[in-house]
Amino acid sequence: MGNLSQKTPSEIRNLIREGKLVQPTAGMANGYAQANLAILKKEHAFDFLLFCQRNPKSCPLLDVTEVGSPFPKFASSSGDIRTDIPKYRIYRDGELTEEVTDITEYWEDDMVGFLIGCSFTFEHALLNNDISVRHIEEECNVPMYKTNIPCVEGGIFRGNMVASMRPIPHKDVVRAAQVTSRFPSVHGGPIHIGDPHVIGIQDINTPHFGDSVTIKEGETPVFWACGVTPQAVAMETKPSIMITHAPGHMFITDIRDEKLGVL
Amino acid sequence: MGNLSQKTPSEIRNLIREGKLVQPTAGMANGYAQANLAILKKEHAFDFLLFCQRNPKSCPLLDVTEVGSPFPKFASSSGDIRTDIPKYRIYRDGELTEEVTDITEYWEDDMVGFLIGCSFTFEHALLNNDISVRHIEEECNVPMYKTNIPCVEGGIFRGNMVASMRPIPHKDVVRAAQVTSRFPSVHGGPIHIGDPHVIGIQDINTPHFGDSVTIKEGETPVFWACGVTPQAVAMETKPSIMITHAPGHMFITDIRDEKLGVL
Repeated sequence: MGNLSQKTPSEIRNLIREGKLVQPTAGMANGYAQANLAILKKEHAFDFLLFCQRNPKSCPLLDVTEVGSPFPKFASSSGDIRTDIPKYRIYRDGELTEEVTDITEYWEDDMVGFLIGCSFTFEHALLNNDISVRHIEEECNVPMYKTNIPCVEGGIFRGNMVASMRPIPHKDVVRAAQVTSRFPSVHGGPIHIGDPHVIGIQDINTPHFGDSVTIKEGETPVFWACGVTPQAVAMETKPSIMITHAPGHMFITDIRDEKLGVL
Repeated sequence: MGNLSQKTPSEIRNLIREGKLVQPTAGMANGYAQANLAILKKEHAFDFLLFCQRNPKSCPLLDVTEVGSPFPKFASSSGDIRTDIPKYRIYRDGELTEEVTDITEYWEDDMVGFLIGCSFTFEHALLNNDISVRHIEEECNVPMYKTNIPCVEGGIFRGNMVASMRPIPHKDVVRAAQVTSRFPSVHGGPIHIGDPHVIGIQDINTPHFGDSVTIKEGETPVFWACGVTPQAVAMETKPSIMITHAPGHMFITDIRDEKLGVL
């Protein structure tokens, strides 16, 4: 299939749509923003949109589809959220019941799709500033933690923020805060720098989601709001049906990473 | 009543609530963000929120109330959007029918209030950078123009962007773009710099809203997205009832201007 990092977003989406690519999307279509997916029925859409609006660091929206439309037309010219993600998870009443590679048969006329910015974009910004990203070095998933930081409530949705952590050399911590602050639509600047206990994390070596990574001498743990937050919060309300991407299997948008920079 | 610029937001809101202050709010509670108001019924709230989410330069949301709640609890500790604005406008089926100083009797259980960022905040940023603001100098309203720039549609809401214009000395144009870009939640950077015809404005001396201001030799007209846009767009859909602030009579939030800066 050639070098997936050099293909365009629509080329990748077509391969996924045709069932030829069922794997995590990290590194594909280099330079384009990838997105988390949450699909809810209309009855919860206003509350969820309100929740995202009030919690922009955890839930930065890249696109919201019209009611009943599976086409995220502002994030992509030709995308279809029913077919263009390599792997989906179906939750019924808050419980994971199925993992599938196509949700066409699950789609209903009153569903709304939410595409939420993903940390891959700001990780590129870190790498472009010669700040290395540990879980990429160690070829594992980013460590994620439930924090004691409450999200702002929105309608029926409430819960605490989930944060991702990257160990950063002391000398690069300020620069890491600066360069990620340029990208508020993909989580923006850190939500905490330093002592994990301050935000309610008891054991930094035991993340609640993802994998543990090495924190070296001379490094500070730096925490960013994580796109798992809205899914975790939505799931707690146990909607009759909710569909998400499977971890790491993202929607690849036509939005250039750099265009998400505010300055 | 003392110097209104030095009073706190809650002091000002109380004076307004008690009917003691019925005048435009420019210059009051110096350093705190003021907001445009739009109130719609629940049936239009999701579409309007979607429209705002898709058009953040025109419709930067500072707060959205819960359905039926008149309390913008994230923008103010004690505010009530039914009483704390000096003058309101009631629109029925898209027509202005009443101007009142209190909307308590108009409030309904299925109404949602939207507080939208206002240019007063970025004008402070310009002034703090020694960039003078012409309509403040000339003690009139900012000139506003209908442009040919379509907003992104959201549900039933669609229409073109309204832009405000400030003449800026050539040497300060780049700095004006920089300092206002820091404030994306109050319209952010300019949407156009220079020739008004490019964005569909035929006669710069005849604004569609507000007042005409002098453009001096050596100045460039600079255009920013304007908070009148969402009201104009919402009105075009002719909802059975819509309530807004009267021009210049804003809601004063507890949010410090500087806290809206992204960097």
